[in-house]
Amino acid sequence: MSEFDTPDLQPFHAMEVLARAQQLEAEGRHIVHMELGEPAAPAAPEVRAAVRAALDLPQRYSNSKGTPELRAALADYYASQHGVTVPAERIFVTLGSSSGFILAFLAGFKPGARIALTRPGYPAYFNIIRALGLEPVEIAIRADLGWRLSAEQVEAVHAETPFDGLLFASPANPTGAMVDRAGLASLIEVCDRLKVRFISDEIYHGLEFEGQSASALEFSKDAVIINSFSKYYCMTGWRIGWMVVPEDMCRQVELRAQSLFISPSSVAQTAGLAALGATQYSEAQRAQMAANRDRFVSGMQTMGFEGLRAPDGAFYAYVDVSGFAADSQEFCLDLLDKAGVAATPGVDFDRTDGHRFVRFSFAGPEADIAEALKRMGGFLGRP
Amino acid sequence: MSEFDTPDLQPFHAMEVLARAQQLEAEGRHIVHMELGEPAAPAAPEVRAAVRAALDLPQRYSNSKGTPELRAALADYYASQHGVTVPAERIFVTLGSSSGFILAFLAGFKPGARIALTRPGYPAYFNIIRALGLEPVEIAIRADLGWRLSAEQVEAVHAETPFDGLLFASPANPTGAMVDRAGLASLIEVCDRLKVRFISDEIYHGLEFEGQSASALEFSKDAVIINSFSKYYCMTGWRIGWMVVPEDMCRQVELRAQSLFISPSSVAQTAGLAALGATQYSEAQRAQMAANRDRFVSGMQTMGFEGLRAPDGAFYAYVDVSGFAADSQEFCLDLLDKAGVAATPGVDFDRTDGHRFVRFSFAGPEADIAEALKRMGGFLGRP
Repeated sequence: MSEFDTPDLQPFHAMEVLARAQQLEAEGRHIVHMELGEPAAPAAPEVRAAVRAALDLPQRYSNSKGTPELRAALADYYASQHGVTVPAERIFVTLGSSSGFILAFLAGFKPGARIALTRPGYPAYFNIIRALGLEPVEIAIRADLGWRLSAEQVEAVHAETPFDGLLFASPANPTGAMVDRAGLASLIEVCDRLKVRFISDEIYHGLEFEGQSASALEFSKDAVIINSFSKYYCMTGWRIGWMVVPEDMCRQVELRAQSLFISPSSVAQTAGLAALGATQYSEAQRAQMAANRDRFVSGMQTMGFEGLRAPDGAFYAYVDVSGFAADSQEFCLDLLDKAGVAATPGVDFDRTDGHRFVRFSFAGPEADIAEALKRMGGFLGRP
Repeated sequence: MSEFDTPDLQPFHAMEVLARAQQLEAEGRHIVHMELGEPAAPAAPEVRAAVRAALDLPQRYSNSKGTPELRAALADYYASQHGVTVPAERIFVTLGSSSGFILAFLAGFKPGARIALTRPGYPAYFNIIRALGLEPVEIAIRADLGWRLSAEQVEAVHAETPFDGLLFASPANPTGAMVDRAGLASLIEVCDRLKVRFISDEIYHGLEFEGQSASALEFSKDAVIINSFSKYYCMTGWRIGWMVVPEDMCRQVELRAQSLFISPSSVAQTAGLAALGATQYSEAQRAQMAANRDRFVSGMQTMGFEGLRAPDGAFYAYVDVSGFAADSQEFCLDLLDKAGVAATPGVDFDRTDGHRFVRFSFAGPEADIAEALKRMGGFLGRP
């Protein structure tokens, strides 16, 4: 069996970099990990305490939509953070954002429907859409426009290739780009006009360095919202997230959630509920990532990446390395082998232009950023 | 939006019985729960201790196939329990059996492929198959044959409606029926001959009262095995399971697992690894369920259900109530309202003949079985 059996499904090159990094580590090398899209910190102390306290209780299936307590707390979150009232009936707790995407696509679209998404973008989007029998439509976004998707681009691509859904993230992976309130409102407005279902991936909400994110919920009752405890709450390995579903899709999502997933993890729901109350911890993580961002971006600028702009949010810098190498995949393997710094080649995020870019994650500890910069300076001959 | 929008996806009536039971409990009534397919006990002490010890470590994404430690331990399990050598590369840790089914169907079959399954059977099977764009083909099994599927039935139905996969569980939900080694071997043999992919749901393995289950792995390298820590290990709320994938499907499953699920929960993998070592605890649970089975079945026989035979495994009795009521759904609501015993109407498992049957789960504590029998005696006027 070879990869050619599914020409449309691509492996994550990040995973292959990780495998090579782990091999080097097994040989005794020290590697700085900047290829992983996850915070280095554990979940908040409040989260761990809540799980400890719950461990001796039977952990049974919950309601397939999640526990009433967690759904009520998420409704409160939208009221306090975004000033919107969301009935808890529209909130579904999910097994990470992963099951949220699956439920949104299966319940919201007919087989063969077209879903638009940005290029570059999170590679799993493309693969999930394909794996579920839908058709991805790529909208190329541009570095010189700050990697921000505009309503005009959406309209122009739709005129050429009409699509049924738009999957959009702000802050975005791999660029860290954010649209402002007006930008988000105009994207939703054009989708409403074109009868395109807006799917808002808000997984990096909370991790903003320039102002706060608006939620699509502030502008639309028809958007599907996907979110997760993975990033801002440092809980990738817990696999717990949530979605907010428009009223007309609720029953369809619930029927599929019952059969496809039964219920989210009860243990992880206990953890998520505690995480919502541990904002001080999450804010401290955000502050650390902001400091990491400043340090990494200015270090890279000094090293010759003058055009690199600081990302608005998330914890990624998407760096044009074409001044240093013809192919970013070779650049990444070379950087890993010679300097012990792991990063992700842009082809994971953009099959067309990704050979020019590398994604660096600065979600790791502070000391890692300094060490990575030192090693890269040596590697590039620009100490 | 109404249910009629998806005539093919049915809600679980068990969930609606649960909702009514919870409403009665909110009004102060005491309810004996026999509608839930889950053990009453928490996970083993070893499991809770392992999770406690791991909580302060960062819980990050694992490899999308699961941690090497857990996969190695599962390979050991097949060697010691079933005498078969399975390379760890063929083992995928999953988010409960749920993601295992999704991956098996998406990676193993083309859209529109036909999947055979027994009627009665676990209702999520039918819904998962439909939700993923495949076609279920029902094979009716018979009470007078002990609810056991035979190779002859498979061959006869395939001659009428050729199918591409057979999804089969032993012990089975809702009947508790098991096939013996020869029966399993003949089912796999006929599937191989007809070029039908055999998907073996082994989630109730370990919960046997008459001999031990064989695994499909003992007879086939081409079968897909689905299993979970939910039942024998009392870990429903942890959402952790595994699958064993034939070599020719491994890459296809891995590509989909990476994008659709990223990785199983790291916390739950720690729990699962500890559970594999806590067999004494699981065996004590099994012994309790065996005692519950004997008590419940003989109590029901005394009450007038003379034809009820003791299930071979799992923790369900599938009872013909047609001597007491014309419709089992009304029987269940009546039993709940008047006697405070919750059970699941057979229509969840069999849309054709389910109105005659009720599924009782005896996975609860011993005292619940005695109390349920007492209440049912009063309800039926057969104390």
